Amino acid sequence: MRLLVVNPNTSAAMTATIAAAARSACAAGTEIEALNPAMGPASIEGYYDEAFAVPGLLAEIAAGEARGCEGAVIACFDDTGLDAARALAAIPVVGICESAVHLASLVAGRFAIVTTLARSIPPLETLTRRYGVADRCRVRAADVAVLALEHPTPEARGRLLEQCHRAIDGDGAEAIVLGCAGMTALAASLAAELGVPVIDGVVAGVKLIEALVGLGLRTSKAGGYARPLAKPYLGLMEPFTPRG
Amino acid sequence: MRLLVVNPNTSAAMTATIAAAARSACAAGTEIEALNPAMGPASIEGYYDEAFAVPGLLAEIAAGEARGCEGAVIACFDDTGLDAARALAAIPVVGICESAVHLASLVAGRFAIVTTLARSIPPLETLTRRYGVADRCRVRAADVAVLALEHPTPEARGRLLEQCHRAIDGDGAEAIVLGCAGMTALAASLAAELGVPVIDGVVAGVKLIEALVGLGLRTSKAGGYARPLAKPYLGLMEPFTPRG
Amino acid sequence: MRLLVVNPNTSAAMTATIAAAARSACAAGTEIEALNPAMGPASIEGYYDEAFAVPGLLAEIAAGEARGCEGAVIACFDDTGLDAARALAAIPVVGICESAVHLASLVAGRFAIVTTLARSIPPLETLTRRYGVADRCRVRAADVAVLALEHPTPEARGRLLEQCHRAIDGDGAEAIVLGCAGMTALAASLAAELGVPVIDGVVAGVKLIEALVGLGLRTSKAGGYARPLAKPYLGLMEPFTPRG
Amino acid sequence: MRLLVVNPNTSAAMTATIAAAARSACAAGTEIEALNPAMGPASIEGYYDEAFAVPGLLAEIAAGEARGCEGAVIACFDDTGLDAARALAAIPVVGICESAVHLASLVAGRFAIVTTLARSIPPLETLTRRYGVADRCRVRAADVAVLALEHPTPEARGRLLEQCHRAIDGDGAEAIVLGCAGMTALAASLAAELGVPVIDGVVAGVKLIEALVGLGLRTSKAGGYARPLAKPYLGLMEPFTPRG
Amino acid sequence: MRLLVVNPNTSAAMTATIAAAARSACAAGTEIEALNPAMGPASIEGYYDEAFAVPGLLAEIAAGEARGCEGAVIACFDDTGLDAARALAAIPVVGICESAVHLASLVAGRFAIVTTLARSIPPLETLTRRYGVADRCRVRAADVAVLALEHPTPEARGRLLEQCHRAIDGDGAEAIVLGCAGMTALAASLAAELGVPVIDGVVAGVKLIEALVGLGLRTSKAGGYARPLAKPYLGLMEPFTPRG
Amino acid sequence: MRLLVVNPNTSAAMTATIAAAARSACAAGTEIEALNPAMGPASIEGYYDEAFAVPGLLAEIAAGEARGCEGAVIACFDDTGLDAARALAAIPVVGICESAVHLASLVAGRFAIVTTLARSIPPLETLTRRYGVADRCRVRAADVAVLALEHPTPEARGRLLEQCHRAIDGDGAEAIVLGCAGMTALAASLAAELGVPVIDGVVAGVKLIEALVGLGLRTSKAGGYARPLAKPYLGLMEPFTPRG
Repeated sequence: MRLLVVNPNTSAAMTATIAAAARSACAAGTEIEALNPAMGPASIEGYYDEAFAVPGLLAEIAAGEARGCEGAVIACFDDTGLDAARALAAIPVVGICESAVHLASLVAGRFAIVTTLARSIPPLETLTRRYGVADRCRVRAADVAVLALEHPTPEARGRLLEQCHRAIDGDGAEAIVLGCAGMTALAASLAAELGVPVIDGVVAGVKLIEALVGLGLRTSKAGGYARPLAKPYLGLMEPFTPRG
Repeated sequence: MRLLVVNPNTSAAMTATIAAAARSACAAGTEIEALNPAMGPASIEGYYDEAFAVPGLLAEIAAGEARGCEGAVIACFDDTGLDAARALAAIPVVGICESAVHLASLVAGRFAIVTTLARSIPPLETLTRRYGVADRCRVRAADVAVLALEHPTPEARGRLLEQCHRAIDGDGAEAIVLGCAGMTALAASLAAELGVPVIDGVVAGVKLIEALVGLGLRTSKAGGYARPLAKPYLGLMEPFTPRG
Repeated sequence: MRLLVVNPNTSAAMTATIAAAARSACAAGTEIEALNPAMGPASIEGYYDEAFAVPGLLAEIAAGEARGCEGAVIACFDDTGLDAARALAAIPVVGICESAVHLASLVAGRFAIVTTLARSIPPLETLTRRYGVADRCRVRAADVAVLALEHPTPEARGRLLEQCHRAIDGDGAEAIVLGCAGMTALAASLAAELGVPVIDGVVAGVKLIEALVGLGLRTSKAGGYARPLAKPYLGLMEPFTPRG
Repeated sequence: MRLLVVNPNTSAAMTATIAAAARSACAAGTEIEALNPAMGPASIEGYYDEAFAVPGLLAEIAAGEARGCEGAVIACFDDTGLDAARALAAIPVVGICESAVHLASLVAGRFAIVTTLARSIPPLETLTRRYGVADRCRVRAADVAVLALEHPTPEARGRLLEQCHRAIDGDGAEAIVLGCAGMTALAASLAAELGVPVIDGVVAGVKLIEALVGLGLRTSKAGGYARPLAKPYLGLMEPFTPRG
Repeated sequence: MRLLVVNPNTSAAMTATIAAAARSACAAGTEIEALNPAMGPASIEGYYDEAFAVPGLLAEIAAGEARGCEGAVIACFDDTGLDAARALAAIPVVGICESAVHLASLVAGRFAIVTTLARSIPPLETLTRRYGVADRCRVRAADVAVLALEHPTPEARGRLLEQCHRAIDGDGAEAIVLGCAGMTALAASLAAELGVPVIDGVVAGVKLIEALVGLGLRTSKAGGYARPLAKPYLGLMEPFTPRG
Repeated sequence: MRLLVVNPNTSAAMTATIAAAARSACAAGTEIEALNPAMGPASIEGYYDEAFAVPGLLAEIAAGEARGCEGAVIACFDDTGLDAARALAAIPVVGICESAVHLASLVAGRFAIVTTLARSIPPLETLTRRYGVADRCRVRAADVAVLALEHPTPEARGRLLEQCHRAIDGDGAEAIVLGCAGMTALAASLAAELGVPVIDGVVAGVKLIEALVGLGLRTSKAGGYARPLAKPYLGLMEPFTPRG
């Protein structure tokens, strides 16, 4: 099985971390192609960055599908461009936020998402409502920038840990979801320290896309994910041909 | 008052229709700058087209703000790029879907959105849930392409009318919201024919942005709409400087 | 444009404050008729006062419509009698709570309503659920009586400010909605002090009714707001003729 | 036990029907005082009629409490004036819509409310949302005027029955709630004919108020139902003294 | 009237307490048969205990119905086995959690459930969502074991009281629901101390089943509560004949 | 990896079908132990059957865990006993309904569950609300008994197909979830015929439990799934020792 894992920001260091996590989690026979677009923001922190990450992301999804990838993971916790990618591709596509909250709901009642910056709380709350877990999941922010997660200082890790403890002790969270792809390397040590399940979206996404591909399930083309219609796309925004 | 109305697709004919509607609705002292980006899809029909419309849209929002526009309307019923535009701009920004459903809820209990293609129902249902009107608003599609609305055939208008009647007679809709910017010229004749309020998002958006500007209300920068942080944007995706 | 603004309590001082706010906010050509009924409670603090304010309010709505007003604002934050007024009148009618929360949702994600007495929290929470914003809006009370707002002491203003700060810092509110018509004069100074948008319902209501009248939108008569049926009304309760 | 049952409209014939139903349902030792205000509309069909029924209703609640009634039922299916009555009285007060839906949810999963006129659907849907049963209860109208229920023609009864059958066969309703106090005499024959539980609000309200009085439970005065504050009430609207 | 009250755990002391409460609350002519199964857990603290309590509970429901009981109360606050009991029996069956929250919603806006152990919070939150009161009811735990309620120490009672105070002062609760059948004897003294209504599910259940029986209302057999179909039940799990 | 798949009814033929499906879907290195309890109902059709299936199911979960199974799937679409099994076991446990709806939500917007008998609609609707997909998923019944699925007649398959078509054409379903473990063998042929994804819960459950086990995620013991407390269990109901 050949899977595409796209980090939609342009930080190669984060892509390497994501690739390592994905490879550690995938099945023996699975090949992971982890990459990031050549264009777009260095990190995704809020709605604006998301918007500029999507065209490059979609180009990578299209290219990956064209060269034979059987499924794709979008490795940004905002599930950036997920709906557009599902409409574009014939292969199944999952986001890491949706993947993490689905798995979290299988091992816990209440749980919490602990993310980076406060500005990311509103978009993630919008996602928890869409995914139907808002009444069991609170979103907290640790005030750590995304790129600071590459080599987190003890102080940054401490702020993250503090929010986890507040979630468990104050909100009744029974599990922690890591709210940024850049936190993937911290999952194991946090789980050991906290004593509750800690769910990382990158590995959750890999397992769920393996599940879909393994079962032959592809995105339905019967509704909102119908193939894009053929039409003119002016300017430099569309470097590949939609299969209308 | 100087207002920006951006048609996020690249169809100049639709921009002209939108401009005419906006000017017919604005207050005496209001100046409308209606335009569309130079890059992006010819029409927005589903998630994929949305993704490619956003960068050009944001460029126009930034440029409009820079040259003195005091508020902006995004004239696509998917409220394409709305969150990103709010994060980018200091001036207030409204979408035409949100504007229409807010006004509809002031003149009716239940109401319906009648849109173009079936593929647009899921994204619009996502919006009605976000805007808190899902339990009073059903979305219906008339199976008419967006660009076919420029010069609608009697048959296309008939299909639109049929869905309006089904909404009123079958769903208990007390008002109709037109689910595409391209329908703006049809509002008056449909209202006369149907006997219930017919709300067009373009003029609704103009009145609501006039309200916000008139009251000096601007997007809060305290949460998810905080200014984008300064960071590298690789490639051609970012033709203007975010005010980090 | 000629608009009616009814303060449904019988405090003439509050009516004067409301009138001033309404006139400061309306468009150049708009004429504001601000008044209060001759009968009813001196202030509206809870469900009981609301009940006795409604008949006098409806009489004023009917009289205003009869003498040519084109739209009406009910200037009590409980949106007292709003449904009945919509059923009675052919002209559009808005409440100041619904107006404020609609505008707030255009400039902020989460926001808070700060009202007067704790007893008003439950009715306002019922309204936020009806208006579809309960998951993004918390209601707080400052423990200040309605009539104490006419000449608020520094101590009363301080209590109001404290609740605003708690909402912003503790609840993640990105904007403040003033939860009483009597707070209208405080909006500008609070906004300056708090650094987030502060939305007053009186001016919000004026702008929204201007929008509806400007667009020719009237309350739908197809459902719950159908004209009252002709029938006997015994006693002194009905000083005007319903148009059955 | 001495209970007050107020029909908030001024139709004496309907009050007699309600009284008979209440007496048939109450416990052996219970005394029913069934009455209607001297002022107000002849029937309650929509928001406007509700508004004019409330002051007279509240006067009767206050008088009933003063002369020793221990609990009160508001016998209009719109639960007219219920919140205000709870704030006014020390004795517990229930509405017949809330009573019926609470009992219905004890004997059925999905159920339906079948009411009189289409204009009553929106206010009843608002109630089903408030009472937390909207996802299991649909509201249907039989197009029969309230006062026509005093001596229903076979044709009117047929229309009612047709909506019951549609609810059971089409909506999966497992029980029927009669959506008007004037339908109380029809409950037994409809239940026999339909083969599912048929719940009448009048008798449901009597049993629930008996339950509350029997257990010594009174309306909490800690929140929104706090006693009205003492203040001037101008005009003829307030014929009794609130206990501030 | 002859009513069955089943304590689904096997603690005879708790059954005696429940019986006393039920008898103190029922009408003059009502005969209470209070009992517990011979098999099952000594107390029900969480999902696992529930599962083992159900078969014995159902056997008692079937036996009670067979010997002439006209209605049944399941006296465990988890509403253990309620759906299965409703499917099994022709007579109406109520749980004490649903009974308590229905009555609480008649005398208060917001209210709180105060239960025993933290592990019971998730199942009770699931119930408050099912019963439609989740947005007005918070669940709190006092960290007191169920069987410790038989002779509560002052320290245990103090912890219970502390949670009640936090609910009233911090959450805006206007009434307290006791979240365990074993708390029934504490209701009166807590109500006196707290100054708000305190609702015990055991007596609430008795009054609601009296109401249903009094009105001749039985569980609908039209949907999910249809009679069990005749089929083989292997092993020792089914000591009575389902009426297929 | 060694996985337990428990069919909670006592039909060995259905267990064989489930085993075959599970083995066809699992990864190369996975060993499937598929079995059913020796005690309990021959099929699970409604709440009553569920209750009697749970004790035997739990015994199998405990035995499977004791002999080294690393994860468990409960292969009944009612997710029978799922919460109790999660509390009992240290290994992760998933139900096939939750598994199917999680995967369905990754490949479709709206979708439908098509189940066997109408009596199963209410319990499944309760599950879709718990799992947060009620607003995008409708439940339909084909009127086919569970055991009739072992060798479905063309007429039975036709009824199933008809409900699938109604869901797709009438409800806007973009995918079909098979609402009974006994339908697993029909998935492939239905998907081919319908042209949309068809999701079977048995294979979905296998892939999700593989994902959890692969990632080392186990049920959180911090909340409602805490280990059962040690206590007496009277009678024959508890054939194994809970690990208190």
